[in-house]
Amino acid sequence: MEMHDLLRELHERAETKIVLLVADGLGGLPVEPNGKTELESARTPNLDALAREGACGLSIPVLPGITPGSGPGHLALFGYDPLQYRIGRGILEALGINFPVGPRDVAARGNFCTVDSAGLITDRRAGRPTTERCQTMCRLLQQVRVPGLEVFVEPVREHRFVVVFRGAALAGAHQELGDRVNDTDPQQTGHKPLEAKGADPASQNTARAVNAFVTEAARLLKDQAPTNMVTLRGFARYPKIDTLQELCGLRAVALAVYPMYRGLARLVGMEVADAGATLADQVEALRRLWSQYDFFFLHYKYTDSTGEDGNFAAKVEMIEHLDEELPKIRALDPDVLIVTGDHSTPSKLRSHSWHPVPTLLWSPTCRPDPVTEFGESYCLHGGLGQFQARYLLPLAMAHAGRLGKFGA
Amino acid sequence: MEMHDLLRELHERAETKIVLLVADGLGGLPVEPNGKTELESARTPNLDALAREGACGLSIPVLPGITPGSGPGHLALFGYDPLQYRIGRGILEALGINFPVGPRDVAARGNFCTVDSAGLITDRRAGRPTTERCQTMCRLLQQVRVPGLEVFVEPVREHRFVVVFRGAALAGAHQELGDRVNDTDPQQTGHKPLEAKGADPASQNTARAVNAFVTEAARLLKDQAPTNMVTLRGFARYPKIDTLQELCGLRAVALAVYPMYRGLARLVGMEVADAGATLADQVEALRRLWSQYDFFFLHYKYTDSTGEDGNFAAKVEMIEHLDEELPKIRALDPDVLIVTGDHSTPSKLRSHSWHPVPTLLWSPTCRPDPVTEFGESYCLHGGLGQFQARYLLPLAMAHAGRLGKFGA
Repeated sequence: MEMHDLLRELHERAETKIVLLVADGLGGLPVEPNGKTELESARTPNLDALAREGACGLSIPVLPGITPGSGPGHLALFGYDPLQYRIGRGILEALGINFPVGPRDVAARGNFCTVDSAGLITDRRAGRPTTERCQTMCRLLQQVRVPGLEVFVEPVREHRFVVVFRGAALAGAHQELGDRVNDTDPQQTGHKPLEAKGADPASQNTARAVNAFVTEAARLLKDQAPTNMVTLRGFARYPKIDTLQELCGLRAVALAVYPMYRGLARLVGMEVADAGATLADQVEALRRLWSQYDFFFLHYKYTDSTGEDGNFAAKVEMIEHLDEELPKIRALDPDVLIVTGDHSTPSKLRSHSWHPVPTLLWSPTCRPDPVTEFGESYCLHGGLGQFQARYLLPLAMAHAGRLGKFGA
Repeated sequence: MEMHDLLRELHERAETKIVLLVADGLGGLPVEPNGKTELESARTPNLDALAREGACGLSIPVLPGITPGSGPGHLALFGYDPLQYRIGRGILEALGINFPVGPRDVAARGNFCTVDSAGLITDRRAGRPTTERCQTMCRLLQQVRVPGLEVFVEPVREHRFVVVFRGAALAGAHQELGDRVNDTDPQQTGHKPLEAKGADPASQNTARAVNAFVTEAARLLKDQAPTNMVTLRGFARYPKIDTLQELCGLRAVALAVYPMYRGLARLVGMEVADAGATLADQVEALRRLWSQYDFFFLHYKYTDSTGEDGNFAAKVEMIEHLDEELPKIRALDPDVLIVTGDHSTPSKLRSHSWHPVPTLLWSPTCRPDPVTEFGESYCLHGGLGQFQARYLLPLAMAHAGRLGKFGA
């Protein structure tokens, strides 16, 4: 919170442009003893030039040893303490399908499941239905009405869907929806779905709505075995977050292909532009929107997905592809250009990891450091040191001449 | 606290083994200009191999510039913020003689002193009696009874002993013992011992018991000059600490020769095994207990005691001896092996110091760094950077595959 108070107090107007290029899961590990990481193995002349001219370091997304999901990882890069601002599973799920969640919403992840004639769950995933069937079932559930609030049901895929409960716009405590509601999924077969209960009055409002929804859903799905029942979990309120505009005076825009990252950007007040389907499209959108914004968030997914696949060579290739697009970004003459990741995804581990993330900040106001190539080992000697990722945005603001002096 | 919340939330079961080898006071200083430290001077092929394969860094036990005692130094290595969890002098003294302090106890350090016929202190250490005399006098004091609670008196050495006041097991505010009680030692001769006063109701209970104890002690010791009176100081309650089992799901065991370290380990919920008298014995105990625990704390005292003696060569030798035992530990195939110290004890300073502590974390999931030898200068370039010691346990948990993802 202290950093946010400083940003709010010190931010200044400037005609400068900041580009934050997030290569999802960028950090990696060598596979062989004495080997190189994916980033160190990739041929990246453009990233290396930025590293030579700029400052490098390793960012710690949350705290040492903590492996972040995409939510906390991105919030940190946007300047928010991910321990302070927690984005619940339901909200993230809604963001992931591009559902426009808002401040009156409580979102939950839904699962279709199968129950027997006694109402006991026999399959928690309803035999993994096709996504098409999921869509059909969700259309059925869209008929459910709960008095006093709005309910939205949207398919995700297979047995998964999203439910959003939206409180009435009227003022009054009885309308408020809380998210301290237990999962109705009993986590094992042979049991009935659990009744929802709220841990405080606002959450009791939600729990009543949830139970009404589930009762009606059960009625509508009665003859639809194996998708003849639902469980709901991960109830989460829309988080209260000061926007980048409020904190930093930044007009920010997200150029992201995948919905979840667009949603995360929207949470912190970024506008979300049509970014096409490829990095080249995103860079073209960047060029097109250059004059309209101060801050540009570009999200590149494939460094993460290849890491999750355990495909070292493919991750190297995706990094090289990213590198090739950099001259087009530099040609726009940004004042600050950052390349980093929201976390590491070593292909050796096939998953997100806790390892610090190679980070590069290029700007004419950088103090140069001895780093000559962009890679994990090189970044160890970088001028940014090892630092908490949530300090990256203030650093960007400073290098962009957008932060005034603290104290006289 | 946030890290503890994260550990509690994220820890997962795994069949992995973590070894924490603490070489007490490991960090050092060169004696000559441009010289090497004790660790850098020692021939340590096994530590160097671990450093090459693993990640190194320098841990800061408390905060920069702060020299820790053994209590805070070890608590940090066990994952506890030493500023949050303060172990009072009395408790530490009781742990140091292997007294089984518990949650109802207030412990204090006692000194035998000499008073004249007017009751004024003439020697605050009673002429440093022999430890044998200390034991005899303590047997006298063990006769003291204080109504409503239990009192334990145990010798330490020379003029020093420990008193433990144990509150009744019955519930009720009047039974609770607080530790906000002043030292009765006036810190100078020519004064009477001070009356104990409590700063809150629970501590007033303690103060009454202390004054009753001292009155009765004075009566029993009347004819025992020069050990004819006592002063008490460092009143401390048994601290409330969540155990490593609760925080991390770790079955932890301590293999330590000296009582204080066994006691510190017990405080955080470790079991304490019979570890013999030498490092070879401890390693043999490690082998014997390997299948029964997840986390093994080995404590090696002699790097500290030689440092305190100001004996550079002896400290080097003790480090080399430690190095020789490492192959037997590696042969057990731990998933994470950490070698560090609880603080620095440079033989040049003959005391604990504030200098960061060389730290080595070896694991197959480490990101390798350029460090090729284990030593203070090399560790400066290590992948762990300079970090707060309390993050070492979360890092160990992560590398051992025992921490899940934070957020989605």
